[in-house]
Amino acid sequence: MPNIKLLVEYDGSFFHGWQEQPGLRTVQGELRRVLSLVLREEIAYVLASGRTDCGVHARGQVVNFHLAELPDLMRLKHSVSNILKGQLAVLDATVVSDDFHATRSAKQKQYGYTIINRAAPLVLDYGKAWQVAYPLNLELMREAAACLVGQHDFSSFRGSGCNSSTPIKQIYSSNILVSDPVITYQVVGSGFLKQMVRIIVGTLVDIGRGRLVDMPNILASKNRQNAGITAPAQGLFLDWVQY
Amino acid sequence: MPNIKLLVEYDGSFFHGWQEQPGLRTVQGELRRVLSLVLREEIAYVLASGRTDCGVHARGQVVNFHLAELPDLMRLKHSVSNILKGQLAVLDATVVSDDFHATRSAKQKQYGYTIINRAAPLVLDYGKAWQVAYPLNLELMREAAACLVGQHDFSSFRGSGCNSSTPIKQIYSSNILVSDPVITYQVVGSGFLKQMVRIIVGTLVDIGRGRLVDMPNILASKNRQNAGITAPAQGLFLDWVQY
Repeated sequence: MPNIKLLVEYDGSFFHGWQEQPGLRTVQGELRRVLSLVLREEIAYVLASGRTDCGVHARGQVVNFHLAELPDLMRLKHSVSNILKGQLAVLDATVVSDDFHATRSAKQKQYGYTIINRAAPLVLDYGKAWQVAYPLNLELMREAAACLVGQHDFSSFRGSGCNSSTPIKQIYSSNILVSDPVITYQVVGSGFLKQMVRIIVGTLVDIGRGRLVDMPNILASKNRQNAGITAPAQGLFLDWVQY
Repeated sequence: MPNIKLLVEYDGSFFHGWQEQPGLRTVQGELRRVLSLVLREEIAYVLASGRTDCGVHARGQVVNFHLAELPDLMRLKHSVSNILKGQLAVLDATVVSDDFHATRSAKQKQYGYTIINRAAPLVLDYGKAWQVAYPLNLELMREAAACLVGQHDFSSFRGSGCNSSTPIKQIYSSNILVSDPVITYQVVGSGFLKQMVRIIVGTLVDIGRGRLVDMPNILASKNRQNAGITAPAQGLFLDWVQY
C-alpha cells in the first residue's frame, strides 16, 4: 500500500480546525472526503504533523495517508486544489517509505504569529492577524521571547484539554521580527502543547503593554494562571515541518 | 468650510473600483454614503489621489472632502471603519488647509504589485496576488524594470479610455524585490496612466518567461501593441501618496 505525503496550505477561516468532528467542516474531514472522491477509493484516515485549532492557518502542513494503488500525483494535486479553491491547496505530493508517519516522524516545526500594532481595525489582513491597539515595548517582548529557548516544562502555556504525554518541549528559536506596524513572532520547536504558541503570544503582548513583567518566573511557575491571555487563532500560521 | 483629509486602507475585492457609478458599489460611493451618515450631513463629493480600478487594493489612499462644521475626527475614524468592517478602514483623519486637493496636490505615489511564482493556486494570498506558474528569469525582469526610471512617454503602457492629459510621466524608482516564491514589483512615480502599473507588470512577466525581450524598445515604440498583457487587478496595491 503506497504511503503518500502531501504538503498543504490552508486558510483556517474556512475550517473548524484540523481534527475530524461529526457535523463540522474540518481540514481532516474535507481532505479525506476530497481525496476519496479524486482517487475513487475510500481513504480511511489522513494524518497531519499535528492538529491546528479552529481558525489557525497553515502555509506548510504535512499530511500522509495510505491507499491501495499508486495515484497520478500531478492529477491529485490539481484536483484537490481545484475542488477546495481558495481554501486549501496541495503544494507537493510524493510517495514516501511505508514507515513515514506525519505526526510521529516530525522533528521540528515553525509557527509564525502576526500582530498588527495599530489603532485602526484590520482590512487587508482581516482574519490573518491580531490587531493590537496599545503601544508595545518591543525590547521587553524580545527579551521575554528569548527566555523560552531551550528545554522547559511549558505547563504555564498549556491550554486545557491538552493531551500531550509531556509538558516538556524543546524550543530551538523564539524571535520577534518587526516591520512597523507588523510584529511577527516566530518560534521553532520539537513540538508544541495545545494553544502553546497562542498563550506565549498573549503573554508577550501582556509584557509589551506592561500588564505582566517576568517571563522566567511565569515559565518556572508551571501555572497557566500566571501567563497572559490566549491570542486569537486567526494570527497563527503553521509555517513548516521538518522530518 | 473645514477641509478633511483621510488616509484609508481598502480591500478592492469588495468594490467596483474607486469611481462612483450608478448601480455599482464603489469606494467613492460607499465613502460618501457612510460619511454622510456618520456626519449627519450630505457630503457632496469625496476626492482621492487617483482612481483605483475594480479589484485594486489600497494600503494608503488619500482622500479629502469639505463639510460645514468641524467633526469629531476620532469618532469619524471609528464609525466609518466599523460600518465598513473588514472592507475599508480610516487610518488617519486630519483637518488640512482649504487649498489641499487630494488629486491635484499629490506629488509622488508608490504602487506595489505581488506575484506568487508557484504551480499551486493561491490560498492565503487569494485575491491579493497574481499566481504565475511559469519559471521567471528574475535578472531579466530586474533589468527591464530599471529601464523605466526617468521621464518617459508611457503610451505603450496606457490602457484604453485613459483620460490623462499627457502620457509623459516621471518614474523615480522601479524595482523587483524577491522573497521566494513572492515577487514584488515596487514603483514610485509622479503619476500613472490608466492600468499603467498592471501593463508594466504584465510586460515584466512576459519578459521573465521569454515571450518579450526588449523593454527599451517597447517603451520607445509608444505603442500598447508592443507591450505585454495587463496583469490582473487583484495583485495591485496603492501603497502611499506623498504631498
